[in-house]
Amino acid sequence: MFSIAGETLQVYFLGTAGALPTPNRNPACIMIRRGADSLLFDCGEGAQQQMMRARTGFTVDAIFISHWHADHYLGVPGLIHTLSFMGRTEPLTIYGPRWVDEFVDGILKLAKKPPGFRLEAHALNHGDVVPFKGYKIRAFSAQHGIPGLGYILEEDARPGRFNREEAIRLGVPEGRLFGKLQRGEDITIETDGVETVVAADQVVGPSRPGRKIIYTGDTRPNVRSWLGWGMDADLLIHDATFDESERDRAPEVFHSTAADAGMVAAQIDAARLALVHTSSRYTNTITHIQDAGEHYSGQVFAPVDLEIIEIPYRS
Amino acid sequence: MFSIAGETLQVYFLGTAGALPTPNRNPACIMIRRGADSLLFDCGEGAQQQMMRARTGFTVDAIFISHWHADHYLGVPGLIHTLSFMGRTEPLTIYGPRWVDEFVDGILKLAKKPPGFRLEAHALNHGDVVPFKGYKIRAFSAQHGIPGLGYILEEDARPGRFNREEAIRLGVPEGRLFGKLQRGEDITIETDGVETVVAADQVVGPSRPGRKIIYTGDTRPNVRSWLGWGMDADLLIHDATFDESERDRAPEVFHSTAADAGMVAAQIDAARLALVHTSSRYTNTITHIQDAGEHYSGQVFAPVDLEIIEIPYRS
Repeated sequence: MFSIAGETLQVYFLGTAGALPTPNRNPACIMIRRGADSLLFDCGEGAQQQMMRARTGFTVDAIFISHWHADHYLGVPGLIHTLSFMGRTEPLTIYGPRWVDEFVDGILKLAKKPPGFRLEAHALNHGDVVPFKGYKIRAFSAQHGIPGLGYILEEDARPGRFNREEAIRLGVPEGRLFGKLQRGEDITIETDGVETVVAADQVVGPSRPGRKIIYTGDTRPNVRSWLGWGMDADLLIHDATFDESERDRAPEVFHSTAADAGMVAAQIDAARLALVHTSSRYTNTITHIQDAGEHYSGQVFAPVDLEIIEIPYRS
Repeated sequence: MFSIAGETLQVYFLGTAGALPTPNRNPACIMIRRGADSLLFDCGEGAQQQMMRARTGFTVDAIFISHWHADHYLGVPGLIHTLSFMGRTEPLTIYGPRWVDEFVDGILKLAKKPPGFRLEAHALNHGDVVPFKGYKIRAFSAQHGIPGLGYILEEDARPGRFNREEAIRLGVPEGRLFGKLQRGEDITIETDGVETVVAADQVVGPSRPGRKIIYTGDTRPNVRSWLGWGMDADLLIHDATFDESERDRAPEVFHSTAADAGMVAAQIDAARLALVHTSSRYTNTITHIQDAGEHYSGQVFAPVDLEIIEIPYRS
């Protein structure tokens, strides 16, 4: 059923660079921590060290790779090495577009000595869903010239608001039965020898949507292919390699401009837009933020490495 | 023959960590720049970004890997990716103990898209020499439980001191002929119609040894196997994973203590000793430096990442 208590939902921007790192930006790597779970989305070179710097700890429950360009996955071998060195025995699954099997084979070969845990490869296609406790990850097709995926983290719906006063008025004693009602269960109470059923509906409002985070990976804007899954995201993390000065170049290399990202954010009515994968040719992201703001009135930011954002519940 | 002018010789400590990086220390990577040449000794994860931070540029003439533990080579794939992205076309050779062929095959497979230049693998054994212009790199066996190599950079001998006053006294006109003498060539001068031979020996002192840098890689102290090549090094960069508190553990994992490193430095009469590969369990290197100093009276230091040292000529 529903989990009553809320869970923390945090996004760690561990690597925000484009194809080339800079002294301040590592290649692509985003960690999403929900409650006790930690998922990595892309894992560029140096990811393990960024995890140390951000003090995320080394609990990694799954790794999702967006596509097989080296700046998105070269942190995996070092992370595996360190997890193994630290004594991990729990299997770890790497999800990604096809070639993920060859990738896992490749890093095992490169490791020479096998890690102390099982490394599993799991290929995903457009629409595939990986369920976790309380949320799921859905893959959608990116448009990047090679097979690529974006990912949507979507929480399960939360129970509606509990009307505590109404429950008391109906004679429900405080305590265990409150919890049952909150979880959506009908209960029976006895008042002066008379049994009465109190339905959850009487004291619990309509269920509230969970939170939603979208990570596009590297892509041209292609919201049409995933619009149905992406509406009302709490956070859209979008490729914004270029600003308007490189608008013509963006399609040639299958990337987006910040303006593209702003348009997508507006279309899905996202609450926040994070511009990532900015090309190393830019020494700041002023124009990126401005460009996105021309098309989107929500919160726009261009995170630098080690920024963390907590996503609140909307209601 | 001899090059007259001196060359700069700089050591960039790009990665000084042990098996696990820390927020401040990258895995093993040392760049030696001599004149216009740049050589990498080991290339741990994040090497390319450290090169950016140290502003070394991306001229890499060769890569020498000490052994096939992941913390010593996982920076190669990302570096290759970036060199290729930047348009390199010049071949690049990776030297290392046997398995270097498999390693190069492996990173090419992991790259998916081949780089824009030829990557060559060259296996080295104890005693093998790789010649460069004005210096050579010699490999020697390390003692690390798996095949491993240390490397010695040794410059060619330099010409002796030029006795300018004596040359003038002998009637040699200043200019081109001075250069010839300095390079060791005998010359003929004409004074009042009489030809006289001036031998280089008359005005140039005995040749002076070039500089020498030794990088042991990961190893137990095993100076006996390379003592003949290592004497009088200007800089010894030695495995110093542990301090005396872990003295018993060091041989179990085929590493050295700082005291071991100090003893080796004393035996070869090194001018300077750099302690590297310190384990991530230490939050400082105070005891390391102290331990080494118990056995060695030269200059001891434990470089942190991005430290640079210039090696002067002794005479």
